[in-house]
Amino acid sequence: MSNQLAGISIVGLLLAGLLLSFTVERTPEPTGVISFDLSIADDATPHVLAEFRRNRSEGISRMEFAKGTYHFYPEKGAEFFSYISNHKDVQVWTAFPIIDLQNLVIDGGGATFIFHGRMIPFLLEESSDITLKNVTVDWAEPFHSEALVVANDQNQNTFDLRIGEEYPYEIRNGELIFLKEYYEHPLGQTILFDPETRGVAYNTEAYTPLTTAKRLNGRGLPDARKYPLDALPGELLVRGTERRLRAEELSPGLIRIHGHNKLLPEPGLILTAKGYPWDNRIAPAIRIFHCQDFLAENVTIHHAGGMGLIAENSTDLTLDNYEVSPSNGRMVSTSADATHFVGCRGTVTIKNSRFFNQLDDATNVHGTYQVVEDILSTHSLGMRVGHHQQQGSQLGYPGERIGAVDLDSSFFSYAEMTIESVEKVNSRYSILTFREPLPTALARGHLLENLDAYPELVVKNCTISGNRARGLLLSTPRKIVIDSNYFHTEMEAILVPVESGKWYEAGSVTDLTVTNNTFDNCNYGGRNRGVIRFIPDDENENIAFLNVNVSDNEFRHFDNLFLEVNNVNGFRFAGNTIIDSGSFPALYPGEPAIRVRASRNLEFRNNDYRGRARVILDADNNDTELTFE
Amino acid sequence: MSNQLAGISIVGLLLAGLLLSFTVERTPEPTGVISFDLSIADDATPHVLAEFRRNRSEGISRMEFAKGTYHFYPEKGAEFFSYISNHKDVQVWTAFPIIDLQNLVIDGGGATFIFHGRMIPFLLEESSDITLKNVTVDWAEPFHSEALVVANDQNQNTFDLRIGEEYPYEIRNGELIFLKEYYEHPLGQTILFDPETRGVAYNTEAYTPLTTAKRLNGRGLPDARKYPLDALPGELLVRGTERRLRAEELSPGLIRIHGHNKLLPEPGLILTAKGYPWDNRIAPAIRIFHCQDFLAENVTIHHAGGMGLIAENSTDLTLDNYEVSPSNGRMVSTSADATHFVGCRGTVTIKNSRFFNQLDDATNVHGTYQVVEDILSTHSLGMRVGHHQQQGSQLGYPGERIGAVDLDSSFFSYAEMTIESVEKVNSRYSILTFREPLPTALARGHLLENLDAYPELVVKNCTISGNRARGLLLSTPRKIVIDSNYFHTEMEAILVPVESGKWYEAGSVTDLTVTNNTFDNCNYGGRNRGVIRFIPDDENENIAFLNVNVSDNEFRHFDNLFLEVNNVNGFRFAGNTIIDSGSFPALYPGEPAIRVRASRNLEFRNNDYRGRARVILDADNNDTELTFE
Repeated sequence: MSNQLAGISIVGLLLAGLLLSFTVERTPEPTGVISFDLSIADDATPHVLAEFRRNRSEGISRMEFAKGTYHFYPEKGAEFFSYISNHKDVQVWTAFPIIDLQNLVIDGGGATFIFHGRMIPFLLEESSDITLKNVTVDWAEPFHSEALVVANDQNQNTFDLRIGEEYPYEIRNGELIFLKEYYEHPLGQTILFDPETRGVAYNTEAYTPLTTAKRLNGRGLPDARKYPLDALPGELLVRGTERRLRAEELSPGLIRIHGHNKLLPEPGLILTAKGYPWDNRIAPAIRIFHCQDFLAENVTIHHAGGMGLIAENSTDLTLDNYEVSPSNGRMVSTSADATHFVGCRGTVTIKNSRFFNQLDDATNVHGTYQVVEDILSTHSLGMRVGHHQQQGSQLGYPGERIGAVDLDSSFFSYAEMTIESVEKVNSRYSILTFREPLPTALARGHLLENLDAYPELVVKNCTISGNRARGLLLSTPRKIVIDSNYFHTEMEAILVPVESGKWYEAGSVTDLTVTNNTFDNCNYGGRNRGVIRFIPDDENENIAFLNVNVSDNEFRHFDNLFLEVNNVNGFRFAGNTIIDSGSFPALYPGEPAIRVRASRNLEFRNNDYRGRARVILDADNNDTELTFE
Repeated sequence: MSNQLAGISIVGLLLAGLLLSFTVERTPEPTGVISFDLSIADDATPHVLAEFRRNRSEGISRMEFAKGTYHFYPEKGAEFFSYISNHKDVQVWTAFPIIDLQNLVIDGGGATFIFHGRMIPFLLEESSDITLKNVTVDWAEPFHSEALVVANDQNQNTFDLRIGEEYPYEIRNGELIFLKEYYEHPLGQTILFDPETRGVAYNTEAYTPLTTAKRLNGRGLPDARKYPLDALPGELLVRGTERRLRAEELSPGLIRIHGHNKLLPEPGLILTAKGYPWDNRIAPAIRIFHCQDFLAENVTIHHAGGMGLIAENSTDLTLDNYEVSPSNGRMVSTSADATHFVGCRGTVTIKNSRFFNQLDDATNVHGTYQVVEDILSTHSLGMRVGHHQQQGSQLGYPGERIGAVDLDSSFFSYAEMTIESVEKVNSRYSILTFREPLPTALARGHLLENLDAYPELVVKNCTISGNRARGLLLSTPRKIVIDSNYFHTEMEAILVPVESGKWYEAGSVTDLTVTNNTFDNCNYGGRNRGVIRFIPDDENENIAFLNVNVSDNEFRHFDNLFLEVNNVNGFRFAGNTIIDSGSFPALYPGEPAIRVRASRNLEFRNNDYRGRARVILDADNNDTELTFE
């Protein structure tokens, strides 16, 4: 890359209809003057790509847009096949291929970028010192759909949906399909929103997800896979089932759904649908892979067909005044997590930010486990990616330390090795060679984690509200500070897991401070869980988490259970206030306020409990002296 | 690449069950001795890949296998995302990544290679002087399925299928789905085979393809695409339709099909099914891209989920004693063309070869048209791939001559330009820059063909029989010789088209000799077409083809029409014998034997017509002197 500086200003104006005209001017810079004019119709993609071509040859460090609305279409976009963690591996198109670049500021100048179809707005790979600011991202057509529940009939076991003109659909053999210009989806994954609160509906888990599938009886296919760890590819997961629901058009835009097997959705609520999980995470707004020093500042993401931001193997990432929120009267913003960090390093900082109405967690910070498949020599092994949506992920790079984990004996690694080389044979299977001999205890089925690929995490002054699922999902052994945030989440506000079972998400928390936060009626979606919850997938008495400090927070809660502590060594809970909000009817009035299992060295001091639970602290016998104060 | 020589001999033995053991020995070579032993279980893939790794570092020129059966699984295979012409663009796995290699002989030594799932057995890219010989390729489970028709009921409009244990299935909401270990497919594209003749059934077109879809009435999606040339991606082509057929399980393995809208299949025939076209071409047996000097000798392909061999942009390719034929009692061999050549150069030679029962043509040799989309500057333009299965194809390389075609005025190019550079923006859209200014006549919608990317073609001493569709599809302006072959094809034996309308397959024939061939009851599938047929997609009076010589052939035919000549200048038909075979009932007894349209300079001499047509030659008035002799 050249280090010479240049500046580009792209001035955009939205004209009548879809016609857009903008001017590209190279304004005088200390190092010289470049200036030209350009007038275009309504697809900004080829023009921005032309700037990237110039960038590579001339070394431009800023791209500035003037306020306005810019439309981006995929047809002339740069195309990649992208393996994206926690997404489907897909062909994607972009106007911003930030690949192998250094020192670039993209300043939207307050502009709105509207994307069409299967695009990744910002695709960052192998780049450093990239700033994205002052821009709003949206899609012309969302990847999900929304419909108003207008009636239900307990006798017929049906409910009726009113679907607006903005969500075209058709019914194929009884299946409701929402049609997009570049995409389509059936009901698939669904959840109810409440248009009055503009968030996920109270107790939605009793009604949704809609029961879309039922088991088939039949001879089917004998399950005799050679490599049983590899589940079927996503699109074959329907195998052995058929559709339970049937859609009937009563009149254009009015659809009756038959065959639901939970409570019938109530009129007045909005059913949001995003299709099946193996096909609905295809277009995140920001994808970052193996980058360093990324800053998003004053960036708003109104939608994405997947996550708002997904970062892998990247170092020092900051989101400041970052917002995920719905637009155009939609209930839903992004169709998966607002942000998600896999195998990152340095510090992940999320501050002064807002996360509204996305269909999954506000953030999830974790490493990955890969599974030992073959011992190949004294120094090398074959390993396999556990979950099909982690396909293509890179466990580490030469010189990094890999830990070997045998979950049967401990959540923590029993040996460390240093990577000499990695050969990615395919997206599921790699050959790792180490500088040291393999530990003698190493065996097929053991897990490998990258001990150098965990970040510190700061989440400060943020608001998380109205979304499906959790607020924060924390899996990193580095220092974590969760400070002065507001949570109003459908499931846990903070979930600290060991996701060994299904998602192969590694990283046991060992240094966590949760302080000065407000937990406002979280976990209102219907599950019997704590607002803060520590829980490994593997049920045993081993210690999974260390050194937790939850202090000076306010819990406003409608239900009893607000804290679940499992497999923790060193837990301090102090100076917290717990208030009975009365905001919703309690769902589990028989529960204690706090449940403790398989944990030790706990301390509850100077808390102010004003809730209604008859038992505040329900602890197993590991720590008989334990009291709540 | 190193030029040093080494030899590898891989000795394989099929043991009980799936267990396979083989030994890899490096035998003494003039340049030195390398020898090692290796014993494996039943997946040969990682061991062959290890040889390829060694090959790259040590320069091995031969891989020899001992006779035996080797199984190849994808889980430890090398993975690629591959844009393959006339196939779906897919993630594929291979044990033979012949990429950037020179001077390699793979000698199977008479071995059989059995592949599992979505693999490409031989993936050749950017390589030269590659020989593949003495090997048989098959799949453990085919990508298509077969079922015996056991009954039909005209009153209920149903027919019944008996499905053997080797084709597991399930019925989801009335849809019959055939289940494979790594794949599945619905009925989709179907055709009847006759187990007595072991070929496509006579007049199958009256019965199949099964009418799988019917139109939906509904508001659907307004068609307002910004770039109308890009049709919907394949999987969205179901839009606006729903399934017409309904499957009902009468007992395990016995399935009744309701709703067919053509003649009901007759008991005793075998219905073969391969799913929908957008998802059933995913695993060709041999893929060759931008290679030089490829020889396949004594190679048998029993199956592929797509074409037997698909070659693009490659030079000097020879198939000698090459066979495509079904195995294990299956009716079907490859599920698409036996061989297919796109934009190749030098000479394509197919000799002493046999093509049985594949579900599409024995070969198709053509270039590609791309469509002018934008005039970008005096020397550069944006162009778009016309058909979604040509995505990713490369029109040409710097220094090659591109012709501009305006089909409204001529089938031949009106201007030539020389490529300076190609920028592939994405798989559908490229920016081409030429050494000369663009011709002034050039306009959006005109077609571009690569005048340097057409091969000479020799097809000699081959047998083509029992397959669906055509024998040879010829679209190259270079010299073509079709000599001493046997044809028994369901559609045309030889089709000479200008496929401008749907497939964007370029290349007008200008030098074709068809001599000493036997055409044995071709076109028996039910269509009213010539056995040899010249036909452009665009209906006009312009000349599309030049200099054709059809001489000394024998036509044994059950119907009248055997020759269709449209838009040809220079057609000689001499010394041919046409015999009424009586092998099947005539389908179109009112037709002439030969039909000529929009052609000139024709000559029919010294032919021996012994057929039944009352009119032998039906010519339009372009050539009033024309007579058949």
